[in-house]
Amino acid sequence: MSDPTLPAEFALIARHFRPLAGPGALDLRDDAALLSPPAGCELVLTVDAMIAGVHFLPDDQPDLVGRKLLRVNLSDLAAKGATPLGYLMTVAAPRDTPDDWFAGFAAGLAQDQLEFAVTLLGGDTTSTPGPLALSLTILGHVAPGTMVRRAGARPGDGVWVTGTIGDGALGLAVATGKMTDPTGHLLRRYRLPQPRVGLAIAGIASAGMDVSDGLVQDLGHLCRAGGLAADIDAALLPLSPPARQAGPDWLPTILTGGDDYELLLAVPPGREASLRDAAHAASIPVTRIGGFRAGPPGVMVRGPDGKQLSLAKGGWSHF
Amino acid sequence: MSDPTLPAEFALIARHFRPLAGPGALDLRDDAALLSPPAGCELVLTVDAMIAGVHFLPDDQPDLVGRKLLRVNLSDLAAKGATPLGYLMTVAAPRDTPDDWFAGFAAGLAQDQLEFAVTLLGGDTTSTPGPLALSLTILGHVAPGTMVRRAGARPGDGVWVTGTIGDGALGLAVATGKMTDPTGHLLRRYRLPQPRVGLAIAGIASAGMDVSDGLVQDLGHLCRAGGLAADIDAALLPLSPPARQAGPDWLPTILTGGDDYELLLAVPPGREASLRDAAHAASIPVTRIGGFRAGPPGVMVRGPDGKQLSLAKGGWSHF
Repeated sequence: MSDPTLPAEFALIARHFRPLAGPGALDLRDDAALLSPPAGCELVLTVDAMIAGVHFLPDDQPDLVGRKLLRVNLSDLAAKGATPLGYLMTVAAPRDTPDDWFAGFAAGLAQDQLEFAVTLLGGDTTSTPGPLALSLTILGHVAPGTMVRRAGARPGDGVWVTGTIGDGALGLAVATGKMTDPTGHLLRRYRLPQPRVGLAIAGIASAGMDVSDGLVQDLGHLCRAGGLAADIDAALLPLSPPARQAGPDWLPTILTGGDDYELLLAVPPGREASLRDAAHAASIPVTRIGGFRAGPPGVMVRGPDGKQLSLAKGGWSHF
Repeated sequence: MSDPTLPAEFALIARHFRPLAGPGALDLRDDAALLSPPAGCELVLTVDAMIAGVHFLPDDQPDLVGRKLLRVNLSDLAAKGATPLGYLMTVAAPRDTPDDWFAGFAAGLAQDQLEFAVTLLGGDTTSTPGPLALSLTILGHVAPGTMVRRAGARPGDGVWVTGTIGDGALGLAVATGKMTDPTGHLLRRYRLPQPRVGLAIAGIASAGMDVSDGLVQDLGHLCRAGGLAADIDAALLPLSPPARQAGPDWLPTILTGGDDYELLLAVPPGREASLRDAAHAASIPVTRIGGFRAGPPGVMVRGPDGKQLSLAKGGWSHF
């Protein structure tokens, strides 16, 4: 099954993926990885896939594709208060994928492995007649009982977010020619999310998740999981300068678009100071944008004019 | 992004995948799974993907696709001497995938979860413009230092296999119309491998892996990992009755075809009795088909006529 236009599967793994292998990966020369979890820990496990044409654009730079794949998974760990341990990855690639693509993809992963102190444990590389299909499973650890869950918010807790909201969705609008982006900030944010690894939310947040499907939809998830309602105030949303300049017509996109990869947290008033301390220690901005209250699960958004906003689209669903 | 011909993503997960969720999966309602590994264990982790049109035929029954996906991963754990803990799964499906397909796929997984005492920990479900792309990451555990590795075979160790060899590759020949299969045995073996979970090889096998890419190629992996040669005798190969009836023309397929999912083990002579005891306890047949010796890594096959066979194709590579 060798293909003269492509390196053989094993050579491809040796050249591009073996340099990413860390402790426990057995140099990618065995059928499984071997990992000693920290004594007494609980493991936190999550998986996210990225498909060309669905989650990234086919002409996106391969290093950014690799970094985004790793970062969206790191973001999930960050939202659970977990420390990354390592990852396994599936790469299903068309036979005509140039070797340069793999080189760029692996270089991006290598760069972020250094930045986030995580290494490749194992993987599977295969051909596909379809588009590039990537899947990454990441393992992290927490002290027992401390994982931040979707459920757990209580009436009176504040709704908090890290960083700025909406840049990812606006960046997609830029990438598809629907708006301009003179500074390139929005496009960079869409192409390369910043996982909030290092923000020590365990014991501080009563609930949390990352914002990947849109702020309103994801806040709705926290509401349903906790059996309560949330009110947020559009005027309080932390916006980057280009998002602010985009103007009010883009507010629905900012509220319901995906790809923020900021953390969305429920924080009891008595722990706000701890959150600010943790945020300062990690150099990660945090902003209170509203609060939880008793009520049927749902999200109310107060617009800039003080009136409740009506949103046509609650978020992104794949089916 | 709702599609009237398909259930929404969340409803699809709720209907088909939530019933598969086990302890630690948090009912698939959170962003991550939470797992307490057995105290003092080492984790064994592996991932295998299956793409429609590459690893299975598009019209294969969905329950068998699900079971095969789980079983090929269980087979890797079995070959490492590991006990399964749980799995995470990515399902990238075309938008026109009927709900019945998901129902059948999940039913197959449910059946094998019971058979092999393993449950779903988490996953990601997404659409794809390409063929169905499945990826499954499985976790197992071993006592520290006991994982059976590819490296470790010593000169004088026997080459052993479980079950019968070649049925999978012959089954593929049946599925593609290249041979007949009056009893259906070969096709069943191709469509539904039998992972040898439960064969207690830790402390018995000096090296091991499962046969997925072809006996000769995989034995070559053990040779290269251990820095030694192996001789096997075609007359000693355990063959099912239909494989035996296929005749000598099919011997190269039997030796080099993939999809056996039997265990290939190096066993020192002094541990043969222990292997036979373990095999008896697990009701899994084992057969000695040759031996390892000092020499440049490579596999010599003695044909039924006593002469060395020359094989054109070493196995299966995806690129």
